[in-house]
Amino acid sequence: MRTRPLKVALLGCGVVGSEVARIMTTHADDLAARIGAPVELAGVAVRRPDRVRAGIPQELITTDATALVKRGDIDVVVEVIGGVEPARGLITAAFEHGASVVSANKALLAEDGAALHAAAEANGRDLYYEAAVAGAIPLIRPLRESLAGDKVNRVLGIVNGTTNFILDKMDGSGAGYSEALDEATALGYAEADPTADVEGFDAAAKAAILAGIAFHTRVRLDDVYREGMTEVTAADFASAKRMGCTIKLLAICERAADGESVTARVHPAMIPLSHPLASVRGAYNAVFVEADAAGQLMFYGPGAGGAPTASAVLGDLVAVCRNLVNGATGPGDSAYTRLPVSPMGEVVTRYHISLDVADKPGVLAQVATVFAEQGVSIDTVRQQGRDSGGGDGATAEGREGGEASLVVVTHRAPDAALAGTVEALRKLDTVRGVASIMRVEGE
Amino acid sequence: MRTRPLKVALLGCGVVGSEVARIMTTHADDLAARIGAPVELAGVAVRRPDRVRAGIPQELITTDATALVKRGDIDVVVEVIGGVEPARGLITAAFEHGASVVSANKALLAEDGAALHAAAEANGRDLYYEAAVAGAIPLIRPLRESLAGDKVNRVLGIVNGTTNFILDKMDGSGAGYSEALDEATALGYAEADPTADVEGFDAAAKAAILAGIAFHTRVRLDDVYREGMTEVTAADFASAKRMGCTIKLLAICERAADGESVTARVHPAMIPLSHPLASVRGAYNAVFVEADAAGQLMFYGPGAGGAPTASAVLGDLVAVCRNLVNGATGPGDSAYTRLPVSPMGEVVTRYHISLDVADKPGVLAQVATVFAEQGVSIDTVRQQGRDSGGGDGATAEGREGGEASLVVVTHRAPDAALAGTVEALRKLDTVRGVASIMRVEGE
Repeated sequence: MRTRPLKVALLGCGVVGSEVARIMTTHADDLAARIGAPVELAGVAVRRPDRVRAGIPQELITTDATALVKRGDIDVVVEVIGGVEPARGLITAAFEHGASVVSANKALLAEDGAALHAAAEANGRDLYYEAAVAGAIPLIRPLRESLAGDKVNRVLGIVNGTTNFILDKMDGSGAGYSEALDEATALGYAEADPTADVEGFDAAAKAAILAGIAFHTRVRLDDVYREGMTEVTAADFASAKRMGCTIKLLAICERAADGESVTARVHPAMIPLSHPLASVRGAYNAVFVEADAAGQLMFYGPGAGGAPTASAVLGDLVAVCRNLVNGATGPGDSAYTRLPVSPMGEVVTRYHISLDVADKPGVLAQVATVFAEQGVSIDTVRQQGRDSGGGDGATAEGREGGEASLVVVTHRAPDAALAGTVEALRKLDTVRGVASIMRVEGE
Repeated sequence: MRTRPLKVALLGCGVVGSEVARIMTTHADDLAARIGAPVELAGVAVRRPDRVRAGIPQELITTDATALVKRGDIDVVVEVIGGVEPARGLITAAFEHGASVVSANKALLAEDGAALHAAAEANGRDLYYEAAVAGAIPLIRPLRESLAGDKVNRVLGIVNGTTNFILDKMDGSGAGYSEALDEATALGYAEADPTADVEGFDAAAKAAILAGIAFHTRVRLDDVYREGMTEVTAADFASAKRMGCTIKLLAICERAADGESVTARVHPAMIPLSHPLASVRGAYNAVFVEADAAGQLMFYGPGAGGAPTASAVLGDLVAVCRNLVNGATGPGDSAYTRLPVSPMGEVVTRYHISLDVADKPGVLAQVATVFAEQGVSIDTVRQQGRDSGGGDGATAEGREGGEASLVVVTHRAPDAALAGTVEALRKLDTVRGVASIMRVEGE
């Protein structure tokens, strides 16, 4: 074993960073044995130096992150501050000063992964970021390495624990969105400003990263279609239940059937209760990967939190340290294709549409005609009188006056055709309103 | 990109080997882009050279595997022949002649992994074997690399597809073992001689490999406690159902609570229906990994078959080829601890015991006394008259003559104490027989 320790600079010492520092200290012997060299915490950059950080010697604490990464004796920079700046500048400086980088920064990787990979390669260093997607769940490494000899066609997963907690709560208790969000906030699963989670920005960044790696191409954050889950209602869950489904916020990355383009999107969707993703509870994450030879794989585990995220960071830290000891680098950027990212309109999916309609004969015929004109095939239709309390079996046809509801589930069609259908339905006199539209996935 | 191709020798061209050859041909451009060099099939060693192998030029076929691995121009040997010999000799010769090795050989790795790792290291080459455990499911790499900064405490999984198919069939249809085995054989899920699968030898080899990697120690095949699943009956499934459980053949590797020893075992066990492993259907595999920081992770997918196994082999092939291009080696043997492997008697588990007892007062008191004397705490007891058709609620106590059955589920206790309890129960006059004993896991 080499005796000179590898020096690690830690940028950020919050929930994740403090856990990284703790494990580096308590598991120092194991880490050294696995790396083939001791590893030493050489500096910790923080914003608030006066906060007590158990187990971290005060002399390692600095507020000058830039000076730390430029010190020249740092072998690995671990970046767990998040956000685009100053993380981008610090990581770039780290490469220029000879360090490899382990990052948990999904926003930055989704925004500027290509440039960071280029900087790593130009300086002969590693950029690893397992912790950026789905916390402790090994996902980046399996996609980059285990499946490197296969052709991945689809990645479908729950990659945001906050929204899964909220949706699971709504599903289980019949609570509305606000009530479930309040509980998530009280329990620490949602941040004070939950926008990044509930509007799907967090999941979209992860989808961009996953799609890029899975399909060996470039997918930017802007390429990812994004819908949040703030408008999912208790009524949607009731509709989902009648279909034998639940509702999840999904990140879906797909290669087109002809292999010539890809899509990436984040939106709430109904999935059948029989689908393994349907039973992912609480703040857990799970990701399905479909590949030509491997078939269907699933990866499941805690998608966030200090210790799980630290586990992923430390796995990467061991890997880049081993590479440094061996004078090598791990697999770098593998975006050797330039597959176009198709817009949402070209995604082929299914819709569950709930309409408030006039309760009179002929409505179904009118509605069915609109679907036919748009080239969208109907799978099932369910009619029910509004006065019947929503129970199944009550039909609208044949009763004059009042309102009824019509629930249509389509076969697979391009999203643009489905959206066009909804647009045309809104124009029908007999359609009083479109109560909800939700995609149906996982079948 | 380097232009001289990396030369690959394929040992074995059966279900897996032919799929490896096919993908190497059809995906040659992708593999070259991911490796940074073209990769070329340079020779295929087979036993029956006259069999037609679509897509493989006849001049690559040889029956002399030894000459192939000693040719001197081979960069990577892919071994998919299985069994200990001649695979061991061929792999050793491959290292001595400068090749890295990708193997799918669980029997050999479990038997002699340490020596093979040493041979790889002595020659500065890689030994990768993702395909040896759980087919396409990335498991070796996540354990070796993703969790390299964490402390794994438990690996619990379904690692044999044949037995899972049989047990799933018994569970779903109420079929007996023989009937379910016949169906598995007819559908190609079981081999003509199913001994290696149904007696747990296959799973035990995988458990030895997983335990060694997870705990960074040596676990030999002989260290793994092994019970097959040929004696699981329809009655066991009925008992399991009454407890809200099903029965799976599990491979379980555990670190003792004090961290100073490990255990590895394979046996059928009842697990609660709420446990994610309970819903693993057909020939699928799934493995739970519990680590200090990561928490609970699960990996799920097809555990066998030509294409899934080939996916894992090719992932490894890309990795070792990248390493060769970079002049480096990947993570080697990491068994730097020498944790003793405790015998089965020291494993702490729970028992579900079904007794045929005399239908008279005082039996339960006698039985309970035996448990108390052995220091085993009882969780639940269910008594039922034999004449009642096994329905719940009929009690044995108070009715003279005839037989009754007594079902006892224990709390956690050392396996030796549980076995001692069963031994003592057999000696009671009032106990006519021990109908079944099964461990209860996953709670």
